[in-house]
Amino acid sequence: MIIVIKPNTSPEGIEEVIAEVSKLGYEPRPIFGTEQTVVAAIGDERTHRNLDSLTVLTQVQEVLRVQKRYTLVSRESHPADTIINVDGLKVGGPHFAVMAGPCSVESEEQLLTTARAVKAAGATILRGGAYKPRTSPYEFQGLGKEGLRLLEAAKKETGLKIVTEVLSERDVEHVAASADILQIGARNAQNFQLIIEAARSGKPILLKRGFSQKIEEWLLSAEYILAYGNPNVMLCERGIRTFETFTRNTLDLAAVAVAKMESHLPVIVDPSQGCGKASLVSALCRGAAAMNADGLIIEVHPNPAEAMSDGQQQVDFAAFDKLMASLPPFLTLTGKTL
Amino acid sequence: MIIVIKPNTSPEGIEEVIAEVSKLGYEPRPIFGTEQTVVAAIGDERTHRNLDSLTVLTQVQEVLRVQKRYTLVSRESHPADTIINVDGLKVGGPHFAVMAGPCSVESEEQLLTTARAVKAAGATILRGGAYKPRTSPYEFQGLGKEGLRLLEAAKKETGLKIVTEVLSERDVEHVAASADILQIGARNAQNFQLIIEAARSGKPILLKRGFSQKIEEWLLSAEYILAYGNPNVMLCERGIRTFETFTRNTLDLAAVAVAKMESHLPVIVDPSQGCGKASLVSALCRGAAAMNADGLIIEVHPNPAEAMSDGQQQVDFAAFDKLMASLPPFLTLTGKTL
Amino acid sequence: MIIVIKPNTSPEGIEEVIAEVSKLGYEPRPIFGTEQTVVAAIGDERTHRNLDSLTVLTQVQEVLRVQKRYTLVSRESHPADTIINVDGLKVGGPHFAVMAGPCSVESEEQLLTTARAVKAAGATILRGGAYKPRTSPYEFQGLGKEGLRLLEAAKKETGLKIVTEVLSERDVEHVAASADILQIGARNAQNFQLIIEAARSGKPILLKRGFSQKIEEWLLSAEYILAYGNPNVMLCERGIRTFETFTRNTLDLAAVAVAKMESHLPVIVDPSQGCGKASLVSALCRGAAAMNADGLIIEVHPNPAEAMSDGQQQVDFAAFDKLMASLPPFLTLTGKTL
Amino acid sequence: MIIVIKPNTSPEGIEEVIAEVSKLGYEPRPIFGTEQTVVAAIGDERTHRNLDSLTVLTQVQEVLRVQKRYTLVSRESHPADTIINVDGLKVGGPHFAVMAGPCSVESEEQLLTTARAVKAAGATILRGGAYKPRTSPYEFQGLGKEGLRLLEAAKKETGLKIVTEVLSERDVEHVAASADILQIGARNAQNFQLIIEAARSGKPILLKRGFSQKIEEWLLSAEYILAYGNPNVMLCERGIRTFETFTRNTLDLAAVAVAKMESHLPVIVDPSQGCGKASLVSALCRGAAAMNADGLIIEVHPNPAEAMSDGQQQVDFAAFDKLMASLPPFLTLTGKTL
Repeated sequence: MIIVIKPNTSPEGIEEVIAEVSKLGYEPRPIFGTEQTVVAAIGDERTHRNLDSLTVLTQVQEVLRVQKRYTLVSRESHPADTIINVDGLKVGGPHFAVMAGPCSVESEEQLLTTARAVKAAGATILRGGAYKPRTSPYEFQGLGKEGLRLLEAAKKETGLKIVTEVLSERDVEHVAASADILQIGARNAQNFQLIIEAARSGKPILLKRGFSQKIEEWLLSAEYILAYGNPNVMLCERGIRTFETFTRNTLDLAAVAVAKMESHLPVIVDPSQGCGKASLVSALCRGAAAMNADGLIIEVHPNPAEAMSDGQQQVDFAAFDKLMASLPPFLTLTGKTL
Repeated sequence: MIIVIKPNTSPEGIEEVIAEVSKLGYEPRPIFGTEQTVVAAIGDERTHRNLDSLTVLTQVQEVLRVQKRYTLVSRESHPADTIINVDGLKVGGPHFAVMAGPCSVESEEQLLTTARAVKAAGATILRGGAYKPRTSPYEFQGLGKEGLRLLEAAKKETGLKIVTEVLSERDVEHVAASADILQIGARNAQNFQLIIEAARSGKPILLKRGFSQKIEEWLLSAEYILAYGNPNVMLCERGIRTFETFTRNTLDLAAVAVAKMESHLPVIVDPSQGCGKASLVSALCRGAAAMNADGLIIEVHPNPAEAMSDGQQQVDFAAFDKLMASLPPFLTLTGKTL
Repeated sequence: MIIVIKPNTSPEGIEEVIAEVSKLGYEPRPIFGTEQTVVAAIGDERTHRNLDSLTVLTQVQEVLRVQKRYTLVSRESHPADTIINVDGLKVGGPHFAVMAGPCSVESEEQLLTTARAVKAAGATILRGGAYKPRTSPYEFQGLGKEGLRLLEAAKKETGLKIVTEVLSERDVEHVAASADILQIGARNAQNFQLIIEAARSGKPILLKRGFSQKIEEWLLSAEYILAYGNPNVMLCERGIRTFETFTRNTLDLAAVAVAKMESHLPVIVDPSQGCGKASLVSALCRGAAAMNADGLIIEVHPNPAEAMSDGQQQVDFAAFDKLMASLPPFLTLTGKTL
Repeated sequence: MIIVIKPNTSPEGIEEVIAEVSKLGYEPRPIFGTEQTVVAAIGDERTHRNLDSLTVLTQVQEVLRVQKRYTLVSRESHPADTIINVDGLKVGGPHFAVMAGPCSVESEEQLLTTARAVKAAGATILRGGAYKPRTSPYEFQGLGKEGLRLLEAAKKETGLKIVTEVLSERDVEHVAASADILQIGARNAQNFQLIIEAARSGKPILLKRGFSQKIEEWLLSAEYILAYGNPNVMLCERGIRTFETFTRNTLDLAAVAVAKMESHLPVIVDPSQGCGKASLVSALCRGAAAMNADGLIIEVHPNPAEAMSDGQQQVDFAAFDKLMASLPPFLTLTGKTL
């Protein structure tokens, strides 16, 4: 770390900083500039104390971090793309994944007709929420275990793999018994207890970026999973919260490029949550594919106008068919296949 | 709800919307304006389906909500200020609360010296994290149960009430056994399973606003707690995430005024998290008191420069003494007492 | 507009709102719902007073706008894509434009070598700042008129069209004499006096979105230009300001899709400003092309490490060549040609 | 500046950075840490080139700035509070200023009745927009010169000083002839040509913070004014743009404390724009006063419900009287007087 000392600090003030750096286990190395002095603190920042606390000293202007905070998820530690095995289906590297299905599992008929439709259009993974985190306690909270049963039935019939969200540490075990991928939602992006429990299940995890999570923090949430012994993480960009209100969130497609540069993990894009408007989903899918995303997770519903949750962002079967027909040439250009 | 139809829509297009509104259980009432038609959907929005889904119809421009989404937390349902009983100590209405203590419980000595100091300065509630949610898995995660034991000891010696964060549904029971107030942190502001479990404990809850939670959503998180039978909620404004980087978060003091206008619940302000800089804490405390907040939660440490977490925002005993000495006249002006 | 009355308002309270709506020139139409009353105000919102002011009445909960605020830039008023003639070069519809060149014009050699290089790689328009808006008064402010002279010389030699920023109303005339496109920068996105003056020049205008401008507001800035008689506007998405710090701005590619849906104007993407990192530019160009943008504006410098401004986001000639070689297949897929 | 080299960089890679630092005029000083190497670039950052451009070198991880970018506005260069003379009225230090009046000057009667009312309540400066920057070209744009004439008349009758916004470089001269303080609005917070022209008038300037301007950037806009020879700057915090929609902007009261710590300039707070809701103005005024702001600028209108602009955030005379009556004890506590 670098401790920036304020201009015109007395030698005693500088000495105090040097002593404190030393006391906290780093080797202090002062550099006397033309305008200001800085003290480089030599030592591994990951295993030593964070020196931000030194800003409480009145002569300290700022503390600057040098090292990146994530290790296991970094490209440096693992230069090749990680390819994840989802019950026999590969995701990552050249293998592009399309996860599709309703926002919520609502009924057997709704789920099965959707599963058949998305499979016919080329999807390989079925999404569907059995446990739904809802902003208001008065909104539909999902079918729970019955929803999981329906997802299993859909898998049995269609062969699609299953991705579904888990909301509670106590549900991890039984959700993991039904699902091929555990989704950690945006609201739980820093619910580390849930993340650790999901990591321990050994199942592949789709880790959504939080509403206002910096890319660094998103990678650190993923770092938790790897640190707890589970290397099967798919990062999922799903839009961040900004001042813009025309779209529900602002899909940060540059974050896809950043995440793939900084990390070896596959990156999936959620255009449905990302914009909150069915009419924009197709364009965002093309953009994501062109930017080298490793997959998409798309909300599809037989009749979005009557959906029990988030109908406004779900596409119907015809729109999904058209979208899927348009994707392959973009994938070809980025060297990927469905 | 109000469904806005696009200009130049055919009568058939309008009819389709009217039929859909009717099908979803509302009574449709079209209003033909000079430029556009809108359809008012008559019916209680809280018990009917959300009509946002109708925006998937190409002739629908927008859907506008009429009713507020929260009920139990609203001023309308409970005009008087809620006063919460924290093991005999009143919080809310004219009763101002000062919660103070270290970010993390680090050791017996650290906690007890701090407890004595904040008590001497006038605080009535001791804060201290036993379970710490940390952005990186490599950072100090708290002392856990040993931390709780130390908090109990500090209460026994000083008589201060205890507020501490709970991170896991599985910890609610034993944290509730040691603490007088359960804190739900910003990262768990929409971890509804944890919120529900905490609600069921019956303990008073300090509910922090999420990093990017709108005031409406924060109140809806509180609504969950009331809907699950626990009326003892203190809202806590702790800064939101914005583009500004000089401060760690942007403390939204207007949200204090809004929350007190919209809701009957007490509102506590966390200036330490709110700005992330010890040097700003005192000014923010004065601002919060002047704006009629019902309390403060302040990080205090015997030696912030060497704190194990967030030292940069913790004040030392001398600064806390000075801060506490400056508060009473501001409280007098807003009709409150410590 | 729709005026939402608070629950439990007395008939007199409702009457007062109705009278005020009437007084302000609208025809009031009350709708009595099961929970709340709303008053629809019939009349053209664009030619009447904004009724937001009615929220000062204590019985008014909220005022909801029905009509869109922009007219001339809207798709409704002009369904076909606008194609702009830039001194003989078409931009918009099937005509994709690549604008490239240095952030700042620094010297004759720097500009001419860059002009030749970007022309050879396929760009058709040369960018280069002669007047630079700089956050600090101590930073390089551009060569001014000498910069314009160099741009003219580069045009003369290469045949590239010229786009350059204008910062002052007083400079519009002479900048318009040298440039083919006047750029209004992000800092001036709501400097309406400059926008009006630029509109009056009759020159095509590249209108950058402001740092925190909502899409609606960006379109309204464009509306000013059309309302002042100049239909030749290119919208330019250049990233918005968010909490993310890894990238300089957050490029809002969904805004490209929204702008093209809402408006007939061409939309250009600036990936250089949009991310602030040269290493991300190429991926963002592909994403923009796939999402049907009408062009790109890219910063290119002979030696970015030694650039006088924003070197970190400028690509060198080799990177630009590679980028340009990768674009055509993406354009083919969206039906465009360079 | 500090250049952080990526881990595992070859000695040649480090040499290249050192050579480049040297070439750009700094003295390079490498520090070899346990994990990474950094190169300190010794030299005044304000007079040398910005080294951010070095991030285009693939071995460079990041470039960290050491020095603050502002000088003349900093506390270091001028430890005492600046007190500004506004035509005989002092603002700053112990002198608290209340600026009040309508959003827009609408008519002689509207302005004069308001001027009398705010003067009677204790305001010392009259605000009123003659030139209005409006998001849409179809909204009321102000009375222009006639508005200035009315402001002069109001000054003549009441003795109140005048603050009014200037939108165009071309208007600076005649606005300065009528006004005692020139306001630079949020939309022009980085319109440096207008700022420079206003600086040259020699008049005191009220500089609003931009919608998404960091505190550092706001201070740098002020630095322009001082660098152009005008020391009479009042900073004005007026709310920043965030994701929150209940309030129009998020008033950043911590920025008041920061600005007063970092700079010697007076800081004025605009609660009307800051929240966009008349019902919140009074609480925000109290908060601002408690946090040691040097003044307030408040929108007051004889009949807000019928105001021609921003009625929703204007208070009426009765509310303003009450607000003014509540302020003095808060000012006493912070050692200020009206």
